[in-house]
Amino acid sequence: MQWVKVLGLGLGAAALLGLGIILGHFAIPKGADAPAPSTSVLQDLDLELLKAVMGQLDARKIRESLWELSRQPHLASSPRDEALVQLLLSRWRDSESGLDSAERTEYEVLLSFPSQEQPNLVEVVGPTGDILHTYHPNEENVTGEQGGPDVVQPYAAYAPPGTPQGLLVYAYQGKEEDFRELQEQGINLEGTIALTRYGGAGRGDKAVNAAKYGVAGVLVYTDPMDVNDGQSLPSQTFPNSWGLPPSGVERGSYYKYFGDPVTPYLPAHHSSFRVDHSNASGFPPIPAQPIGFQDAKDLLCNLNGTLAPSAWQGALGCEYRLGPGFRSSGSLPDGSQVKMSVYNRLELRNSSNVLGIIRGAVEPDRYVLYGNHRDSWIHGAVDPSSGTAVLLEISRVLGTLLKKGTWRPRRSIVFASWGAEEFGLIGSTEFTEEFFSKLQERTVAYINVDVAVMANATLRVLGTPPVQSVVFSATKEIDSPGPSGLSIYDNWKRHFNRSSPVYGTVPSLGSLGAGSDYAPFIHFLGISSVDMTYTYDRSKTSARIYPTYHTAFDTFDYMEKFLDPGFSSHQAVAQTAGNVLLRLSDSLFLPLNVSDYSEVLHSFLRAAQQELGNLLQQHNISLGPLVTAVEKFAVAASALDQHVSAQRKGSPDPLQVRMFNDQLMLLERAFLNSRAFPEERYYSHVLWAPHSSSVATFPGLANAYYRAKDTDAGSEAWAEVQRQLSIVVAALEGATATLRPVAEL
Amino acid sequence: MQWVKVLGLGLGAAALLGLGIILGHFAIPKGADAPAPSTSVLQDLDLELLKAVMGQLDARKIRESLWELSRQPHLASSPRDEALVQLLLSRWRDSESGLDSAERTEYEVLLSFPSQEQPNLVEVVGPTGDILHTYHPNEENVTGEQGGPDVVQPYAAYAPPGTPQGLLVYAYQGKEEDFRELQEQGINLEGTIALTRYGGAGRGDKAVNAAKYGVAGVLVYTDPMDVNDGQSLPSQTFPNSWGLPPSGVERGSYYKYFGDPVTPYLPAHHSSFRVDHSNASGFPPIPAQPIGFQDAKDLLCNLNGTLAPSAWQGALGCEYRLGPGFRSSGSLPDGSQVKMSVYNRLELRNSSNVLGIIRGAVEPDRYVLYGNHRDSWIHGAVDPSSGTAVLLEISRVLGTLLKKGTWRPRRSIVFASWGAEEFGLIGSTEFTEEFFSKLQERTVAYINVDVAVMANATLRVLGTPPVQSVVFSATKEIDSPGPSGLSIYDNWKRHFNRSSPVYGTVPSLGSLGAGSDYAPFIHFLGISSVDMTYTYDRSKTSARIYPTYHTAFDTFDYMEKFLDPGFSSHQAVAQTAGNVLLRLSDSLFLPLNVSDYSEVLHSFLRAAQQELGNLLQQHNISLGPLVTAVEKFAVAASALDQHVSAQRKGSPDPLQVRMFNDQLMLLERAFLNSRAFPEERYYSHVLWAPHSSSVATFPGLANAYYRAKDTDAGSEAWAEVQRQLSIVVAALEGATATLRPVAEL
Repeated sequence: MQWVKVLGLGLGAAALLGLGIILGHFAIPKGADAPAPSTSVLQDLDLELLKAVMGQLDARKIRESLWELSRQPHLASSPRDEALVQLLLSRWRDSESGLDSAERTEYEVLLSFPSQEQPNLVEVVGPTGDILHTYHPNEENVTGEQGGPDVVQPYAAYAPPGTPQGLLVYAYQGKEEDFRELQEQGINLEGTIALTRYGGAGRGDKAVNAAKYGVAGVLVYTDPMDVNDGQSLPSQTFPNSWGLPPSGVERGSYYKYFGDPVTPYLPAHHSSFRVDHSNASGFPPIPAQPIGFQDAKDLLCNLNGTLAPSAWQGALGCEYRLGPGFRSSGSLPDGSQVKMSVYNRLELRNSSNVLGIIRGAVEPDRYVLYGNHRDSWIHGAVDPSSGTAVLLEISRVLGTLLKKGTWRPRRSIVFASWGAEEFGLIGSTEFTEEFFSKLQERTVAYINVDVAVMANATLRVLGTPPVQSVVFSATKEIDSPGPSGLSIYDNWKRHFNRSSPVYGTVPSLGSLGAGSDYAPFIHFLGISSVDMTYTYDRSKTSARIYPTYHTAFDTFDYMEKFLDPGFSSHQAVAQTAGNVLLRLSDSLFLPLNVSDYSEVLHSFLRAAQQELGNLLQQHNISLGPLVTAVEKFAVAASALDQHVSAQRKGSPDPLQVRMFNDQLMLLERAFLNSRAFPEERYYSHVLWAPHSSSVATFPGLANAYYRAKDTDAGSEAWAEVQRQLSIVVAALEGATATLRPVAEL
Repeated sequence: MQWVKVLGLGLGAAALLGLGIILGHFAIPKGADAPAPSTSVLQDLDLELLKAVMGQLDARKIRESLWELSRQPHLASSPRDEALVQLLLSRWRDSESGLDSAERTEYEVLLSFPSQEQPNLVEVVGPTGDILHTYHPNEENVTGEQGGPDVVQPYAAYAPPGTPQGLLVYAYQGKEEDFRELQEQGINLEGTIALTRYGGAGRGDKAVNAAKYGVAGVLVYTDPMDVNDGQSLPSQTFPNSWGLPPSGVERGSYYKYFGDPVTPYLPAHHSSFRVDHSNASGFPPIPAQPIGFQDAKDLLCNLNGTLAPSAWQGALGCEYRLGPGFRSSGSLPDGSQVKMSVYNRLELRNSSNVLGIIRGAVEPDRYVLYGNHRDSWIHGAVDPSSGTAVLLEISRVLGTLLKKGTWRPRRSIVFASWGAEEFGLIGSTEFTEEFFSKLQERTVAYINVDVAVMANATLRVLGTPPVQSVVFSATKEIDSPGPSGLSIYDNWKRHFNRSSPVYGTVPSLGSLGAGSDYAPFIHFLGISSVDMTYTYDRSKTSARIYPTYHTAFDTFDYMEKFLDPGFSSHQAVAQTAGNVLLRLSDSLFLPLNVSDYSEVLHSFLRAAQQELGNLLQQHNISLGPLVTAVEKFAVAASALDQHVSAQRKGSPDPLQVRMFNDQLMLLERAFLNSRAFPEERYYSHVLWAPHSSSVATFPGLANAYYRAKDTDAGSEAWAEVQRQLSIVVAALEGATATLRPVAEL
């Protein structure tokens, strides 16, 4: 009975609170509720305004913001990270250049840090058990910015603590096949320490693969061949070039999934249910530690055993051998072992997103999202502050127009500064979990600019097909930095292009993996997304990423001296992203070209027919229904696109515009199936889920196919191939149904 | 390489086809695409027209339709079922009273039938093994309509074939606790045949529970106490009263889930992946067969053993004993056994839905769905033809207005005639699988009228809270049949009412289980749904359902003589359903009252606090976050409702109306979580999923609680309670976010 009383009181209080809130709500007039001026209901994108905005995006302002953002390390949940939350709030609440509103949302998430007291160590232990050598626990303080308490030592986030010790082996990139190769070479991996290098496999995968073979601990280094085009001398590297210094170490998350590891599918509020840390899946099974190539060289060049395959060789200036152990002729005594001491700790920390909103004048319930993460490993001038500086410049220019009263977008614009991305896209994922329905119903697209500039050669874009056209429109209007005189579009096309059966040679968009905060939006929510960055000329360098990635050498000076002097590339990215943002928010008809999905579907289908077709046929699995589904989709999509262009020329009714736009906006949603591959946490998009094979085709089908490949006819695995085929066919048919005239089935 | 050629050709052909279709598409102008007359864009429900429609719904026409629909048996996938498909198509394509379009969609689904050659039998086998007695394989041909090849013999659909034989026991309703009781009475159930009666547990559950205790076969009968108020003589039953004759047998599906059993989550197209029948889950584990009470009496009244509990007694005119076996003093020799011979077969059959569409004038992309199943067990005059006759009358009246050009609804109306409902809501479920995205994005509500009339005392309504207000509005306007002079609303309130803290005494809506085709719409798609029927006075009969339910005695004469002479109750249901349909399709603002959800949430919360609160507290599980979430929801919902009423009085902009309506329409969607209880196939609505307990509260929480109740603190089961609590809190918070002003987080 007591509960009733308690509730009674609760209700009474709540009723009052409710009344108060309701009164407050109605007392404060909201522009969203005042009728939009009917003149603007059918207004299309204002090209003059667009041009004006392009002109106001200022390289110097971007430079100033970048300096402020990157002058101190701002690791997720650190005091400086909080200071930047305040910086963003103040910018977005500025009376002259701010937005309609700005607020923070805070989550309590599980992060991983090295111990302050006991730094992680890598040591050589002699046959008699005494420590012969201890490697650098930290990067060398080359520019005065690599030291101090705020510079987190190199570590493998989420790798478990432990002090494994054993003979060293060299396992190349730590791929499954690399360890198999060692085993086939007759090397007993049980209890060994595996030295691997970045690239080839995901960070965490190296440890997962190693553990399968009994390896006790994993070291990871960056080979100069992979980022420095072979250059490894101090004189050849930062601060003398953009190259990675010998002591530089790439930090990173070794967690397999994304989002807060202990609140899958639930927003990580204080009261949310949390999986017991020991039951949490996706953490590396064994200790791991990244090291610099100067230390890797000392280990690798002393290895014993057979010569590693030529593909495994690198630029450390010696022959790479496989081990196990060190050779007597080297500088490390025969029989000595490597000892790793990892003291990483899991900690629940508060991490915040900052959201800034410009309310739409006509369709406030349609959102164009634009975001980047805020947290960095150290100073993060490139990653992510170059993107945040661009974000701040775009919001400054639009905020200024807004405060002047000269402009308000048709749709709402939501700017986001995500927390704890480096640990696994945590802030953005929690946001999509908290506002799942609201975002799925209303979001037009998500624009992500993380590393805005890692070099000054060309734009690079990842995205889903519907955004291709709007990115093309934007980039054709903007000059690329530098003397070329080319548009960003033409310059981009020189570096990344493909031959399209529909358009001829065009710049090629890459597909969206899980490399940044767009992942939960495209894979979990089915929201059309785009990611852009300015990058280098792949004909001039073979670097797999900019050399100082995730190191203490990613600083403002590094950016200004070696990546983007004058910040013209930053400006170019701001103009491109800003242009895309305005087109999405202000165009009467959404500039999403759904028929561009047909090209991808045809190529996926072609690949499936060529790569999987014969064996499928042998197992009496017909791709016929898939062929039909793709064709029907192509017909419906092109009919809708033509329909929209016809409408554009006519005098459409506002509700009809909305109707067509809803079809365009929601197409991506129709490809979601949360039951398609539940084992792939969050991945629900049947066209973009991860798949093991290199064949660019339907992921569920491909995964099932390669699992079934070597099993007998009639196996469960072949049944799963059938099921995955039906899943993708059903998704395509369901999507096609949403594209047809709305009063038809 | 050959694939490329094949594809090349395929593409060429497809391109031509595509072009053709596109041209065709643009050649044929579609009203949906022509701008709606701007005058109508803000037009609200026309009350004059509504009144006119009410007046045109004609009892005689309903009677004529019912006669045509029910004059022959029309079991799912039978020739007569196909004939009715044609009837519906012709009615909906009629040039004077038809709709804009009508089409069939066909699925290939797994049904279950008794063998034509070998009828299922129940026999008594003497101690020496010879057959002493064979019970009636069919119902008695009392009115000339119970005979013939189209009258499917009584059977338990999806029960496996088999010929179990053993001593008979009486297991009351076949609930888990009923078998436990028998076991506690020291009865060895291994290898027995259990005689159970309908009620208490689902059909299939009786067999599932029995199998757990080693029972070999299950018989199910209808006790006269449960449907006939005890009357069992031929003179007291049909054709002399509405009572079930002694030979009457309730058929039904014994399948646990709904939808086609072998294509879960996929539309059952010819090419769709099918689970191997042997791997399909949800079928009864042991043979089952329903029998009439005249045969049950012969078995039950001869049983040996101890007297059954008083609650287990019935109206067969003897003392019910538990068995096992027959007593020597009876008419069946001591030691004789019961033999069941079940020859049911699973068959893939084609089953069709028929869809009829009236295109909306202003918002054609918003759908109001109205449906009923078409298939019956035999003649099915009550179930489902009374509902189909009402459906045809409503579509006739609206179609006539449409063809006259005097009316077109604001939103699209989709009429549906579902196939194979009796086997497990198969047609409607396949429809929701095929058009999942399209329906989720655009459907305002689903109206279901299955059994329109099972008696003439009162309306009975099941539905989700948002539809309560529109059903109230409709029923207040319509006179109830008979002399009472009361409105349907007031009459309904006399029979089913509750005391609402907000409204005082109001008619009470029941909650939606899985009793008819609304199930996939509310549970799988999260679409607000309502189900209505005219039923009997529970103070005058204790019948659990109308007596001839699922028997060959459910005929036109039965309806006309005993249930609805004059068809005034049919007319009342047609007026009620038609009124609700028009209000949903023509009102400017959707008549969905989202704040009515708050009442349910508060009562769920109160129940959770009262029933689960103490033990949760002991396990340090706080309901605090749930209390807060419910309060926040209530505040946001009532703010939105007030906001809408304010708008209604003002001069709203069409896009703003759409914006508010989208919030109202999509609220129900926000309660879906496909990951909440994956074991409950299709059930994704966190508020309406099935739960074992009798406490009306949050189902996921309750289920987890009762599973955890007797486990130790810190068990997995208690962790699941925590998780389920967070799931419902997150759902409420997510739903609340969709109700807030759209440009706020």
